[in-house]
Amino acid sequence: MTQTTQEINYTCDYTRRVFTIAVDIGGSLAKVVYSPVDSNRILFHTVETENIDNFIQLLHSIIEKHSSGHVDTTQLIATGGGAFKFHSRMQQEFHNVINGDIIQLDEMGCLIKGLDFFLRKVEDEIFTYNDQDGAQIVSINHDDRSIYPYMLVNIGSGVSILNVTEPNKFTRVGGSSLGGGTLWGLLSLITGAKTYDQMLTWAQHGDNTQVDMLVGDIYGTDYNKIGLKSSSIASSFGKVFQNRKLSLENSHETDEIPSSESVADQNTVVTSTKDIQQRNKKFQNEDICKSLLYAVSNNIGQIAYLQAKIHNVKKVYFGGSYIRGHLTTMNTLSYAINFWSDGSKQAFFLKHEGYLGAVGAFLSALEL
Amino acid sequence: MTQTTQEINYTCDYTRRVFTIAVDIGGSLAKVVYSPVDSNRILFHTVETENIDNFIQLLHSIIEKHSSGHVDTTQLIATGGGAFKFHSRMQQEFHNVINGDIIQLDEMGCLIKGLDFFLRKVEDEIFTYNDQDGAQIVSINHDDRSIYPYMLVNIGSGVSILNVTEPNKFTRVGGSSLGGGTLWGLLSLITGAKTYDQMLTWAQHGDNTQVDMLVGDIYGTDYNKIGLKSSSIASSFGKVFQNRKLSLENSHETDEIPSSESVADQNTVVTSTKDIQQRNKKFQNEDICKSLLYAVSNNIGQIAYLQAKIHNVKKVYFGGSYIRGHLTTMNTLSYAINFWSDGSKQAFFLKHEGYLGAVGAFLSALEL
Repeated sequence: MTQTTQEINYTCDYTRRVFTIAVDIGGSLAKVVYSPVDSNRILFHTVETENIDNFIQLLHSIIEKHSSGHVDTTQLIATGGGAFKFHSRMQQEFHNVINGDIIQLDEMGCLIKGLDFFLRKVEDEIFTYNDQDGAQIVSINHDDRSIYPYMLVNIGSGVSILNVTEPNKFTRVGGSSLGGGTLWGLLSLITGAKTYDQMLTWAQHGDNTQVDMLVGDIYGTDYNKIGLKSSSIASSFGKVFQNRKLSLENSHETDEIPSSESVADQNTVVTSTKDIQQRNKKFQNEDICKSLLYAVSNNIGQIAYLQAKIHNVKKVYFGGSYIRGHLTTMNTLSYAINFWSDGSKQAFFLKHEGYLGAVGAFLSALEL
Repeated sequence: MTQTTQEINYTCDYTRRVFTIAVDIGGSLAKVVYSPVDSNRILFHTVETENIDNFIQLLHSIIEKHSSGHVDTTQLIATGGGAFKFHSRMQQEFHNVINGDIIQLDEMGCLIKGLDFFLRKVEDEIFTYNDQDGAQIVSINHDDRSIYPYMLVNIGSGVSILNVTEPNKFTRVGGSSLGGGTLWGLLSLITGAKTYDQMLTWAQHGDNTQVDMLVGDIYGTDYNKIGLKSSSIASSFGKVFQNRKLSLENSHETDEIPSSESVADQNTVVTSTKDIQQRNKKFQNEDICKSLLYAVSNNIGQIAYLQAKIHNVKKVYFGGSYIRGHLTTMNTLSYAINFWSDGSKQAFFLKHEGYLGAVGAFLSALEL
């Protein structure tokens, strides 16, 4: 079970005797946010959604630990798709230990409420990133209405793009099914990686030009007329099919490799041991991971730019657990926004990028 | 070697004694277009770019066959990246049999010239497609300036998007590295498919919901508030990582399967035979192919829509060898344009979708 814990301090003028615990249950990850009564700390946890039993156990142990003493009552707030999918299961589990029903809140509203909180109330939270300048903390004038308009691109299993025109006024303008779940799913199929972080580590050290077809691979040079450099990626994974075939054709070892799968049903995956072994000689996990990370991140960056252009927005905040503070990911998203907008739009990141929805749900509960 | 041949008739008032052969050499495929002297037929061939020797042989045999008799001279025109990358090699090969140098032409200009020809001069070439209505031939008023503006989305190894405002006036407004090379490369890695057409056949029969995470998988129901149906794809391949893990965890056969690759270097592809065999039980090639075909096509459709919105264009023509008349591909592209534009924009297809650049180069040569 992947489980990460973080905490931040925040200023809260609310005198609470209610222990509040908020969850944001996404397609792949479930996020938990709570604040011990009489403290000004917010604590964060992430677990995988598929381990719903473990998740429920975690919630029980948090509630048990924090709902005694000065606490009058406990409330449980849920957002994300799982708030609806697992509602009756969770209601059954927790109705004895919480006050009333589990409160279900809309995911998009919670994301915006969470981002607004991080923008206005948490110091040193927002930053820009590119490989040249590194991370640069952005100082936000907390009461400045010039924060608006902005766009939030939330990258979880899939992607949601929200256009925020003023406080609490937003529209979901688009999205994409090519998100973290795609990167994770495809790379686990291809590389056999066991964790998301393993793929990210591989990606950090990979050389995508071993699998991507560059403009230079097609043209031999730059394609000046339309401003594409020789080093631009023309086709993600565009070299694979050719190189894979050449590798098979040129190999002298083909007949010497024992195969346990040489006869395969056409209706199931026919990748034979021989094929896989041949392929392994040609392609490195690092290179494959970097190529797909580039492809997915570039694509999200481009769609975000196009939406920002349509809605005339200059500031694009990237949130969601896809990012995980990974430098190559952030550099690629930043580069895409900068490249496509000719420097007229900018990408921003958050230290707690995965917790916008859970924090938004938590804050909504305080207002109830 | 993949090689396809097609021909069409066209009306040509040009009295030629010059045999003209035009090639469009892309990242993955090389397209050949020529018209025998004294005929009004245009003939088409496609071969894989990697077989450059075969390609040169093919050109030699076409030239030999068609440059005798009434022919005074032969001219060879080249476009696409390979026109530049392979220029000196081809110049060396053909300088004895052609008149002067090989003429190199810009790819984007040729694409537009080719599309303009198909729009204005070829009957029954343009059609719309969706699964409900099937293919519907579109009748174009050939001299009508209301053809403009339009957008061309050319999908080869990568994607180029051109905005055409009037005859021969266009800008490349964008593109994507997620194109045919990506589909082909990733699917050949995962499924071991040997040809593009095999992947397309698999895709036609697959069920993407076995690997894609739907809105219903996350929410249990529709997500009405933002208009997403339960059946919408929230995350392409979003089910893979979870199911793959569950499949490995729940299997009782793990220890009984002989493995020839159980110890693998972390720096190379670590997919072990055991892993692959386990995975094979869970995921079908058909489902994987359909999911990725959906993902890439949906994504191109969305980016095309966003560009069409920005440039205020209603007609989007899809060209390039990615499409190959494949019904699922065309339905997905059409659906994306229709869905995102709320029916205000429309997708169009061409019978000779792969030959826009080569035909454009051919026609340019006639004017020289």
